[in-house]
Amino acid sequence: MKLSEKVLAMQFSPIRKFNPIAQKAKDAGKKVYHLNIGQPDVPTPEVFMDAIRAYDKKVIAYAESGGNTELQDAVIDYFKGYGVDFERKNIIVTTGGSEALTMTFIALLNPGDEVIIAEPFYTNYHTFATAAGGKVVPITTKAEDGYHYAKREQIEACITDKTKAIVCISPGNPTGTVLTLDEMKLIGEIAKEHDLWIIADEVYREFAYDDREVTSFSMLPEYADRVIIVDSVSKRHSACGARIGLLISKNEEFMTNTMKIAQGRLCSSTVDQVGAAALFRLPKSYYDEVKAEYCARRDVVYEELMKIPGVVCQKPGGAFYMTAKLPVDSVEDFLMFLLTEFDDNGETVMFAPAEGFYATPGLGKDEMRIAYVLNKEDMRRGVELIRLGLEAYNKKNNK
Amino acid sequence: MKLSEKVLAMQFSPIRKFNPIAQKAKDAGKKVYHLNIGQPDVPTPEVFMDAIRAYDKKVIAYAESGGNTELQDAVIDYFKGYGVDFERKNIIVTTGGSEALTMTFIALLNPGDEVIIAEPFYTNYHTFATAAGGKVVPITTKAEDGYHYAKREQIEACITDKTKAIVCISPGNPTGTVLTLDEMKLIGEIAKEHDLWIIADEVYREFAYDDREVTSFSMLPEYADRVIIVDSVSKRHSACGARIGLLISKNEEFMTNTMKIAQGRLCSSTVDQVGAAALFRLPKSYYDEVKAEYCARRDVVYEELMKIPGVVCQKPGGAFYMTAKLPVDSVEDFLMFLLTEFDDNGETVMFAPAEGFYATPGLGKDEMRIAYVLNKEDMRRGVELIRLGLEAYNKKNNK
Repeated sequence: MKLSEKVLAMQFSPIRKFNPIAQKAKDAGKKVYHLNIGQPDVPTPEVFMDAIRAYDKKVIAYAESGGNTELQDAVIDYFKGYGVDFERKNIIVTTGGSEALTMTFIALLNPGDEVIIAEPFYTNYHTFATAAGGKVVPITTKAEDGYHYAKREQIEACITDKTKAIVCISPGNPTGTVLTLDEMKLIGEIAKEHDLWIIADEVYREFAYDDREVTSFSMLPEYADRVIIVDSVSKRHSACGARIGLLISKNEEFMTNTMKIAQGRLCSSTVDQVGAAALFRLPKSYYDEVKAEYCARRDVVYEELMKIPGVVCQKPGGAFYMTAKLPVDSVEDFLMFLLTEFDDNGETVMFAPAEGFYATPGLGKDEMRIAYVLNKEDMRRGVELIRLGLEAYNKKNNK
Repeated sequence: MKLSEKVLAMQFSPIRKFNPIAQKAKDAGKKVYHLNIGQPDVPTPEVFMDAIRAYDKKVIAYAESGGNTELQDAVIDYFKGYGVDFERKNIIVTTGGSEALTMTFIALLNPGDEVIIAEPFYTNYHTFATAAGGKVVPITTKAEDGYHYAKREQIEACITDKTKAIVCISPGNPTGTVLTLDEMKLIGEIAKEHDLWIIADEVYREFAYDDREVTSFSMLPEYADRVIIVDSVSKRHSACGARIGLLISKNEEFMTNTMKIAQGRLCSSTVDQVGAAALFRLPKSYYDEVKAEYCARRDVVYEELMKIPGVVCQKPGGAFYMTAKLPVDSVEDFLMFLLTEFDDNGETVMFAPAEGFYATPGLGKDEMRIAYVLNKEDMRRGVELIRLGLEAYNKKNNK
């Protein structure tokens, strides 16, 4: 009665593993600023629950396996706003971006096949690829370079005869790095030369700050047959609990075969799809407002971080994460200190140690990821607590 | 840029493949009675949408990966009603029974590992097992025996050194066969002797008719460490589109490791979980009412089927399906005739050919599955149309 090697090889979420310790701190009366999870505090647009409350079918029936046409059409119109044409057959509605990635890996990977992806990366890529029998090969990036990886030599060095796909998350989690359209073209070229798929996780698409344009691999028609787009309402629409994602591709063979997996699990939530269709019909001004809010938070976080001597970090261009190197040997040890020994006026802070975001053993021990999902004041206080905590930590260690 | 062998080996849903042909018949003005899908017409209990409409959180946030405690507690209380004690840590809320099965197969199966299951079986077992790299080995059953399989010789003949689990669906889809508690004990004994897991799909649990008791593998504490229960609100609560299922086990190693997969996909729908908690709090009288309705439908279907000369079928004990042998060489050819050449007063009928429910090539060609998910009058007319269609089909073929 053994379990599978796959499941034993999977990791527990490194983001969640400090939760019980944080809970203890809270039980002891401390206030903990949670900069560790990608759960925004931005209210879900009311159109979501309004549409659901108005849903009056007597039977909550299965949706189509590929998704409700109302939602598909809303997505088609959304992409039209960026000059990109999709048809219903290019779109499978999934249960979150997570399921879109899971389906993609099942459809592409034979045992031992590899996908390359810039590290640090969202840890669940490892879980999804492992579950499909594949392997993640990291393109190592550095805090000093702002975690950029769109360089030919760097990418090609990771390609083997087992490589099936390049995974690009832009704007990125956990680094906030954004690909330009020219960088996307370079990746498209490399993928074409090496006959690879491009898996483009674009769940933070509009969250590109300063003078950056919204970019998408869907804007490159010359590579459309090898591009698989993953999308979701979780982040941009602040609807993490809605579990509605999208798998979008113009490659017919991929879509036809992936539909077998989609049919197998029957459909995504009927009620959530009703709400999600309303979200994709939001005007562009909605994205502008939310983007402005996150951009302002990023500025606050960056400003406060720069007050900490020895921090290494470039100002990230998008998403709502920032990864930075701290002047400590072990960020995990420092986080443990923050949660168990430190407080400032009864308050402390929690972030995600970045080690779990690296596939290469030993990397990331001195890095942390901050998610700027709280309001500006809380973010400012949270990063201040990191600074104060670091002073206390160094004092304790006689540095 | 090839796809994986896994996805190429998967089948399209055999239930849905006649849909375009049925659509053509409808476009041509024919009325088609759909006895082919497991989508009940019974209204979803109003408590589901009532609970959702009352949900007033401003942010539709991630739920816990293992499920909301409100839903877990409602499930615990539901099982207490049958004298079975579960704790929160025994329960992972999944996205439909489908995801519970997917997670189970990923957690148990190494490449080439086998699960045994009575055929005809719900075709998606094949999809889920294949996606996890495993293999389904069928225990062949027959219409003449009422599709029973709980016999030691029959089960043991299918066990090899690759077998990891016995999958039992009771009450069963597509046959409606129900296991008694004694039969469950026998299967438990066999599983123990051969060191196998028992995957018990009990999504039709209360739909056991006549004098049959509600049975569950959870009622056998002596095998609790090897039993994995799959549950769902889709069928018993007529909430197929809600995508809320359950994975329940007292085996801690299994639950701990499966939680890694659950964390990977983050959570099931927050809103659907709010509704599902209300469903699991329904009084027992709810199940009695729905059960009485389905039982009456079964009686009508059986009565009408027995009017067809040459039909082979025992009266099934549960669920809302019936599989029967028809006096034709090819049920698929007959179904094509019904949809394209036949009508009675502008009406025709559609069922699911059973061939797709068999893993053994060549079996089931002369069998069909009926889902009795329409009201009694429609079910009576539907089966009558099968009878009239068969007469016309035989006439055309000069039989």
